[in-house]
Amino acid sequence: MDVIVPFATRNPKTRLSDVLDRRERNAFARAMLADVLEAIDAAGGTPHVLATRPLDRDLDIDRGSFPPIDAETIVDDRDLTTAVNATLAASFEESTAFGPPLAVVMSDLPLATPTSLRTLLETKGEVVLAPGRAGGTNAIVVRHPSFRVDYHGASIRDHRRAARSIDADLVEIDSRQLASDVDDPDDLVEVLVHGDGRSRDWLVDAGFELAVDDGSVEVVRNDG
Amino acid sequence: MDVIVPFATRNPKTRLSDVLDRRERNAFARAMLADVLEAIDAAGGTPHVLATRPLDRDLDIDRGSFPPIDAETIVDDRDLTTAVNATLAASFEESTAFGPPLAVVMSDLPLATPTSLRTLLETKGEVVLAPGRAGGTNAIVVRHPSFRVDYHGASIRDHRRAARSIDADLVEIDSRQLASDVDDPDDLVEVLVHGDGRSRDWLVDAGFELAVDDGSVEVVRNDG
Repeated sequence: MDVIVPFATRNPKTRLSDVLDRRERNAFARAMLADVLEAIDAAGGTPHVLATRPLDRDLDIDRGSFPPIDAETIVDDRDLTTAVNATLAASFEESTAFGPPLAVVMSDLPLATPTSLRTLLETKGEVVLAPGRAGGTNAIVVRHPSFRVDYHGASIRDHRRAARSIDADLVEIDSRQLASDVDDPDDLVEVLVHGDGRSRDWLVDAGFELAVDDGSVEVVRNDG
Repeated sequence: MDVIVPFATRNPKTRLSDVLDRRERNAFARAMLADVLEAIDAAGGTPHVLATRPLDRDLDIDRGSFPPIDAETIVDDRDLTTAVNATLAASFEESTAFGPPLAVVMSDLPLATPTSLRTLLETKGEVVLAPGRAGGTNAIVVRHPSFRVDYHGASIRDHRRAARSIDADLVEIDSRQLASDVDDPDDLVEVLVHGDGRSRDWLVDAGFELAVDDGSVEVVRNDG
């Protein structure tokens, strides 16, 4: 199955600004993207990056710190919802190179494994949703020509409503790995505890480690 | 399968103190417990509450606000780890009324469904772990006589090590529903977005609702 992976090339992951500077956020975002692309490939999917700018454009900043991204890239500088809906609409036209069906998987899911992605891709349903934290939608499979996304607000509720409004057969899958998007510093705990790819390696190389107190687990950064 | 559900009767869920007073935390904790017990029963498990005090003791405070708990209760006022390990040790003796195998499922998992719990109980492995957020372990199935728990700190890492140290066959299951324990006010978002049991009803009755901004989803409380 073709899998669209949206990626914002400029100033990604702003909510990590307290712990990572802009260059670091760029590098870490690309490490997560690389992990997701690799897992999609291992799950039997064909990933396409839907990027706001060509992926090699910003590499001039610090080429060494970005892992290479070799998936096909579609460039669309519109907002996430608009760009994803354009690919969904196009996928149901015969002339396009991808889909249907079409999956949309967020790029900030470093815990996504081939197994959890295979479950996503193989679950039957005209609309298959994998919820994220805080009302988000981290992954979708679309087999219905009229389904469109809306990533604003509590998107999982809107996606449920959208599926119902077109009488689409809706299934939600139960995956912690697909639910674990990385937005806030607290989310880095999940990557250190459960990750095993480039994203975890990047954090470890950057000096992050777990600080385990009796009742809490946090990440701290050793700059030394 | 017999399923132990630990429950602290006194001053539960202290990290919700900013949004719920002590009586409310008692009532909400019991609503979550009732949801978990019902889901375990529907999954084919036999729940036993492992409580620090008899469950009816504190009902005098405000009987009406607590849902009835009709599962068998084991009273053990020692700390969580000690009490759970005592039941694990006992379960492998012929004289006890429960296990082996024995499962341990936390009481603050209002999103746990019969399906996710059935997956837990049916997954093969001498030690089966369902991770929580922040390094926690929300559910365990134990089929090995020597496995013991340690809920302090990043327990999932300790449980992995403990399983390896006794050469137990270890499996981790990937469930968002079992990973969604409720500790902090942010976690209430999950209950409102995804819950459908007593816990969600209790929050709605208490005036909680989602506040959806373009980029964030939070809970707010209407006291009016």
